[in-house]
Amino acid sequence: MPLYQKQELKVYNSLSKMKEVFAPIQEGFVGMYVCGPTVYSNVHLGNVRTFMSFDMIYRYLKHLEYKVRYVRNITDAGHLENDADEGEDRIAKKARIENIEPMEVVQRYTLDFHNILQKFNNLPPSIEPTATGHIVEQIELIKKILEEGYAYEVNGSVYFDVLKYNEKYHYGILSGRIIEDAVHNSRTLDGQSDKKNPQDFALWKKAEPKHIMRWPSPWSIGFPGWHLECSTMSTKYLGEQFDIHGGGMDLKFPHHECEIAQSVASNGVQPVKYWMHANMLTLNGMKMAKSTGNNILPAEIYEGTTDKLNKAFVPAVVRFFMLQAHYRSILDFSSEAIEAAEKGYNKLIQAVKTLSLLAPNDTSSFDVSAWRQKCYDAMNDDFNTPILIAQLFEAVKQINLIKVAKATISKDDLQLLKESMQAFTFDVLGLENVDSSKGSDKLEGVVALLIKMRNEARSNNDWTLSDKIRDELKDLGIQLKDAKDGTTYSIDS
Amino acid sequence: MPLYQKQELKVYNSLSKMKEVFAPIQEGFVGMYVCGPTVYSNVHLGNVRTFMSFDMIYRYLKHLEYKVRYVRNITDAGHLENDADEGEDRIAKKARIENIEPMEVVQRYTLDFHNILQKFNNLPPSIEPTATGHIVEQIELIKKILEEGYAYEVNGSVYFDVLKYNEKYHYGILSGRIIEDAVHNSRTLDGQSDKKNPQDFALWKKAEPKHIMRWPSPWSIGFPGWHLECSTMSTKYLGEQFDIHGGGMDLKFPHHECEIAQSVASNGVQPVKYWMHANMLTLNGMKMAKSTGNNILPAEIYEGTTDKLNKAFVPAVVRFFMLQAHYRSILDFSSEAIEAAEKGYNKLIQAVKTLSLLAPNDTSSFDVSAWRQKCYDAMNDDFNTPILIAQLFEAVKQINLIKVAKATISKDDLQLLKESMQAFTFDVLGLENVDSSKGSDKLEGVVALLIKMRNEARSNNDWTLSDKIRDELKDLGIQLKDAKDGTTYSIDS
Repeated sequence: MPLYQKQELKVYNSLSKMKEVFAPIQEGFVGMYVCGPTVYSNVHLGNVRTFMSFDMIYRYLKHLEYKVRYVRNITDAGHLENDADEGEDRIAKKARIENIEPMEVVQRYTLDFHNILQKFNNLPPSIEPTATGHIVEQIELIKKILEEGYAYEVNGSVYFDVLKYNEKYHYGILSGRIIEDAVHNSRTLDGQSDKKNPQDFALWKKAEPKHIMRWPSPWSIGFPGWHLECSTMSTKYLGEQFDIHGGGMDLKFPHHECEIAQSVASNGVQPVKYWMHANMLTLNGMKMAKSTGNNILPAEIYEGTTDKLNKAFVPAVVRFFMLQAHYRSILDFSSEAIEAAEKGYNKLIQAVKTLSLLAPNDTSSFDVSAWRQKCYDAMNDDFNTPILIAQLFEAVKQINLIKVAKATISKDDLQLLKESMQAFTFDVLGLENVDSSKGSDKLEGVVALLIKMRNEARSNNDWTLSDKIRDELKDLGIQLKDAKDGTTYSIDS
Repeated sequence: MPLYQKQELKVYNSLSKMKEVFAPIQEGFVGMYVCGPTVYSNVHLGNVRTFMSFDMIYRYLKHLEYKVRYVRNITDAGHLENDADEGEDRIAKKARIENIEPMEVVQRYTLDFHNILQKFNNLPPSIEPTATGHIVEQIELIKKILEEGYAYEVNGSVYFDVLKYNEKYHYGILSGRIIEDAVHNSRTLDGQSDKKNPQDFALWKKAEPKHIMRWPSPWSIGFPGWHLECSTMSTKYLGEQFDIHGGGMDLKFPHHECEIAQSVASNGVQPVKYWMHANMLTLNGMKMAKSTGNNILPAEIYEGTTDKLNKAFVPAVVRFFMLQAHYRSILDFSSEAIEAAEKGYNKLIQAVKTLSLLAPNDTSSFDVSAWRQKCYDAMNDDFNTPILIAQLFEAVKQINLIKVAKATISKDDLQLLKESMQAFTFDVLGLENVDSSKGSDKLEGVVALLIKMRNEARSNNDWTLSDKIRDELKDLGIQLKDAKDGTTYSIDS
């Protein structure tokens, strides 16, 4: 019997605004789509949190023995500067400013994105499709929406007809927006737009002469609207109806609302069974923004190159910090908070290592099976990682008591505890088994100890020992250098 | 004055079969296209050599202060099992066998490819376009070739008309094949093919019902021919005429020959100024092949998991080994050869480190400027890395003589030597500054030294010192454990 049949997972569905029992469309299989980055700048820490949340979800689903197809796209065309279908393509703009080809921008920031996500121990998705890789499919979807009567062409551009759609379906079903209010409150169009109504959104835009990313289509040489790629690629790789669609909270409207409208308009069914949204990350209590300087880049944390932190922190500590909050809660990043997380992380990893040194007893004073189910209960309650971590620390307490013989554990329970700690800490939470201090510190410390011993030998006029330490270190490729203000060393090759 | 104006680079052009002075189409800029992998299996060591050769070329061009746009594609559709346009798509076949979506195959092996190439310190190309990302552009190119009269449609497939093309142009210009001989010698078609002549090749293939990778086109729902993607993408990102086209020797015919034909047929000009081909890698004197077992995977070398080698070798040693041969020579990989390369590599890296310890003299007994020009001369002679490496070892010899005061170097020459060694060893050859032995060896050695000192203290009944060593190591997180057969240690977290 697969694990998912023994553990009842509940998931908060942004569509129903309720926690629901998770039951995928096809038993044993999960199709999950998560909106990926627009690759025109370095990935920011808030994005890292979003993708880490869905990585944790992906890991837990796999742990429950679901076969998961996880699709996360790369937006490499079509994402304009603002949501009203105006402004330049973000990638093309960056390319124009730097005087390079747009696909060079895409390459640079896709590599950065992969690199950063790998640092934080995120598993790669099963498929990572791109918008430019699905121009043909996007054009086919536009044709279908036009055929169904929910879109119109004007001057080579095609727009989705939101009001027409809303007559039969519900535009605003996800975000809770009421389209009639929006129509009532919105200003009239200034005449420069081809849209019938300001709520309409572009499926295809005719390219201005200066627009460098362009493809032929039945309507014009142009480019697809941003919302279209996700409908196209989720349908292609997961089917017209699939299980989970995730993304950052900020994508709920208009992006995800438009995705629903496009899918429903083209085939009449709700595309997604469970919509899931990850909450945002703030820095020192305020929204992160490059413009205000209240910003921190992921690499600045582990390279220790930001004045917002007193020291560097390994990526695993950052991951631990983020998973200490529930994915649907706002989380505030600060120097104090990450320092506290480092202490907790080290304590947890230390306990996992201690586990291998424990000797079993005849009986257990700690009910491991009950504890283990509490860990599952936490995760089954909409992936409640803070509660899971609290449970792991309950185990840490017991491990440290067993170590000093103030508690006991049987052989079977010790085995179960080891397996469970391994599974939740590394497989599910994805925390890496690394010390948060640098490995070279140990060598430094040991060499410093030898230098100290040599200094003592020298002050005792024990030149034999003093020379011996120097020579043996030299044989190991470590050169001591005596100077007025003390002894330093250098390490060969 | 940029460096490329001071150093005259000559490049062996496979098209003219001569070394030619390198003069890019637009002064100061180089457009370079290299055929990348078909991502349906793990990248093999021969491919690693090919991509490393072009990485070295890319690095040297950048070193010469050219602005290089380096495009290397990913073939994720259209590459059939054999060159006669027959058989299954390689990626689709793998997907069918493993019962997964083709793009899952693509994702897995693209990640593997990136990971392996990064291990061997290859720089990422400027753009890494995919075949599926350019279906629209490929269809447009087919239309153009049809319009020019060099292709024909049969039953929804489109074929390039090689004989018609050869009436006006020269099919075989690169590979030296004479099409008339081929026509004369080839068997007649068996009637199952739609082709007019066996030499013709597919531009578009109508998809069989079982073919899972398919796109709409004016001719049929189908997929592009393999040769087409490279013509399409090189033109899109580098223009109708560009400077360098590279690839493995095995791609010369038919792949590159077909690329030339497609480009010339569509716009009448030779697309590439310098064709460059890297030679193959053999293993113990024989062709590498999975089927015969005479095969070694890149990761097996640095993980030490092949019975073909006595130990593991760091990727930088493999890189050094490969660059010891000229990129146009066949190179044989063997246990003895890589062990010898490791010694050479370590000697080179050691000398680079020694450089920083050298003290300058008033005069030089070593003519650094002349030596430096010899390094350039080697690279300028069609990227002759074995000669460059021989020159670097001339410098190693001098560095070691200066170290023991048997040779002298002036301050300015020392500076020039440092800069040149840095530039050629790390920037151009891309050798990483790593020791081929593990870093943890040093810590092991130093701790062993302390254990030895503690044992001596104990045999002298100096318990104060003995305890002190144990306690101070413990504070550093290193636990000593005394047992009957000696003292061992463990390192915390």
